[in-house]
Amino acid sequence: MAIGLILGTSRTKSNSRILADALLKGTEHQILDINEISLLDFEDSRHESVPVSLDESSQTLMNFLLEHNVIVIATPIYWYGIPGKLKVLLDRLSHVFRQPDFKKQKPREVIILAVGGDQPRIKGLPLILQFQHIFDFVDIPFQHYVLAEGNKPGDVSYDQRALAEVAWLREYMMKRENYEGQI
Amino acid sequence: MAIGLILGTSRTKSNSRILADALLKGTEHQILDINEISLLDFEDSRHESVPVSLDESSQTLMNFLLEHNVIVIATPIYWYGIPGKLKVLLDRLSHVFRQPDFKKQKPREVIILAVGGDQPRIKGLPLILQFQHIFDFVDIPFQHYVLAEGNKPGDVSYDQRALAEVAWLREYMMKRENYEGQI
Amino acid sequence: MAIGLILGTSRTKSNSRILADALLKGTEHQILDINEISLLDFEDSRHESVPVSLDESSQTLMNFLLEHNVIVIATPIYWYGIPGKLKVLLDRLSHVFRQPDFKKQKPREVIILAVGGDQPRIKGLPLILQFQHIFDFVDIPFQHYVLAEGNKPGDVSYDQRALAEVAWLREYMMKRENYEGQI
Amino acid sequence: MAIGLILGTSRTKSNSRILADALLKGTEHQILDINEISLLDFEDSRHESVPVSLDESSQTLMNFLLEHNVIVIATPIYWYGIPGKLKVLLDRLSHVFRQPDFKKQKPREVIILAVGGDQPRIKGLPLILQFQHIFDFVDIPFQHYVLAEGNKPGDVSYDQRALAEVAWLREYMMKRENYEGQI
Repeated sequence: MAIGLILGTSRTKSNSRILADALLKGTEHQILDINEISLLDFEDSRHESVPVSLDESSQTLMNFLLEHNVIVIATPIYWYGIPGKLKVLLDRLSHVFRQPDFKKQKPREVIILAVGGDQPRIKGLPLILQFQHIFDFVDIPFQHYVLAEGNKPGDVSYDQRALAEVAWLREYMMKRENYEGQI
Repeated sequence: MAIGLILGTSRTKSNSRILADALLKGTEHQILDINEISLLDFEDSRHESVPVSLDESSQTLMNFLLEHNVIVIATPIYWYGIPGKLKVLLDRLSHVFRQPDFKKQKPREVIILAVGGDQPRIKGLPLILQFQHIFDFVDIPFQHYVLAEGNKPGDVSYDQRALAEVAWLREYMMKRENYEGQI
Repeated sequence: MAIGLILGTSRTKSNSRILADALLKGTEHQILDINEISLLDFEDSRHESVPVSLDESSQTLMNFLLEHNVIVIATPIYWYGIPGKLKVLLDRLSHVFRQPDFKKQKPREVIILAVGGDQPRIKGLPLILQFQHIFDFVDIPFQHYVLAEGNKPGDVSYDQRALAEVAWLREYMMKRENYEGQI
Repeated sequence: MAIGLILGTSRTKSNSRILADALLKGTEHQILDINEISLLDFEDSRHESVPVSLDESSQTLMNFLLEHNVIVIATPIYWYGIPGKLKVLLDRLSHVFRQPDFKKQKPREVIILAVGGDQPRIKGLPLILQFQHIFDFVDIPFQHYVLAEGNKPGDVSYDQRALAEVAWLREYMMKRENYEGQI
């Protein structure tokens, strides 16, 4: 299946979920919900003499990346960056990107939807710059993101610009999938 | 006591610890070690109808901030940003900055020491921009940071520029403490 | 009149002009075209003992800012930043923002349209961060920008996402003008 | 000769000149002073059908880059970015980087010294990010920069941290030159 959605929110009725739904409603997609996996902290074992086997969360992350062509990360912006728990998961990329399987079969695009309460289109840019470096490093194309405004649950429904961008992205994804499906 | 060090590393012989030692050796300071506190994930309860009491980690973070004039955060750069577990702690600022005590008695300066393996002086800048927004928001002055290079444990000892910057920062902190101590 | 367009391009059939037309077609607006003013270099006379009178270009820039509620800057991205000649003009803000008239009667919003050939939505972000600091300093609200892709003249017509964002911005500006017109 | 200094200031007793002197005093180096070249605006002729010959300023810039191993750019920060006249010169890179000579014989390192009056170590970062993209594009290594504080002429002499960083950079350049000289 083509689309995998990583949900970085700890709320059930979250703004980032609303945005993800607007993008993916009616499409076939799978969800990796940060709330449904148990995360011990990432152990930095890059320099251990004995190779460390992938822990459960790293395995979950790797499988999810391998199984989808397009990865959408929908997340609130906490303190101008990636929420802690989502970052604990993404830190596991240190294990994942070393796996031979990952090198052979990466997603061909990643899309970021991020919702923040304090001028997200400006103050969310360090987050986008960080994701640029992350996806450059693991060599997954990243060119589309939406920075949306929302503080209280549901707020994002009033960010008409974000909704227009998501509507455009939805069309873009549909076209791309169909086109490639025909080949 | 004047100086509080927040250690964001999960390694025992870490590069960020080496840098922090170079800055603070022989000074009186206290350490908040991310490894020694147990962190459940941050619950985003900003919009609950009933105010939520501070959990243990939030209380620890708040007390640490209240008790020190200068906060040094020494951390590895994981995936071009704040390590997951440290971010889980810092996300608790959402509880802390709402406390009346915090508003009355903040640290008067924060200093960041960050060690990364991939061109940290360039690719570590989104991290610095993020910290700028964080400390602007909670209104704690932030002007000094060191971006150091290190991958394998001990590497940072070869980053002569970072060590020179830390040596200068050490002098700066000593002068400032003494000067203010005399008043 | 409400809208003033600053054109930062040296081409006649430029991508940034196409984008500006898409935004402003049919509206009443005035244009400050960087090609039609002669620019000597900005002289940094901030610290001269004798106050320096505004040169012609500074006067032109100030009048243009005073006479419009909304300023749109449409510009190519040259070397990941503001084109030299446009920057020579904007450097004159050092004279302009000191004028009492400017403090009393600023534009209430600025919008940036920037077109670049090398991943503008990512590599154009330092330009946006720079504009953020500029407009924070002179205290003019800045929240909307479009980063569009284009290299050869006319290219931008194929950037469907940028065109969708501009279409949204057009609606936003129209609504805002009407609403305020009724008050 | 090894070192070429590009001076981007329009003042004679400028802070960026003071910083450059601290770095290069007693070394053999040549200076390209932005004040001493006459700059017409850059013409964007990338897409003209007839190739355009290098204008005088582009030729000057190219020769300067070809003749030096290390390029130091010392510049004030104007409006959180590159001063207009310096940018008009640097925009000529569009001509220069297409020349076969340039591809064969580039500087092996560029160093930036930038002086600003408004929290340069934080608000000067978009400038550094821009230079990163510029030098990535033309494939010249860039890893060292100093962001110094200064507003009135001479101010930078009080920025002890910047002076310490420059002193370190001076040692670094000397060692590197000698080491390579011996080979």
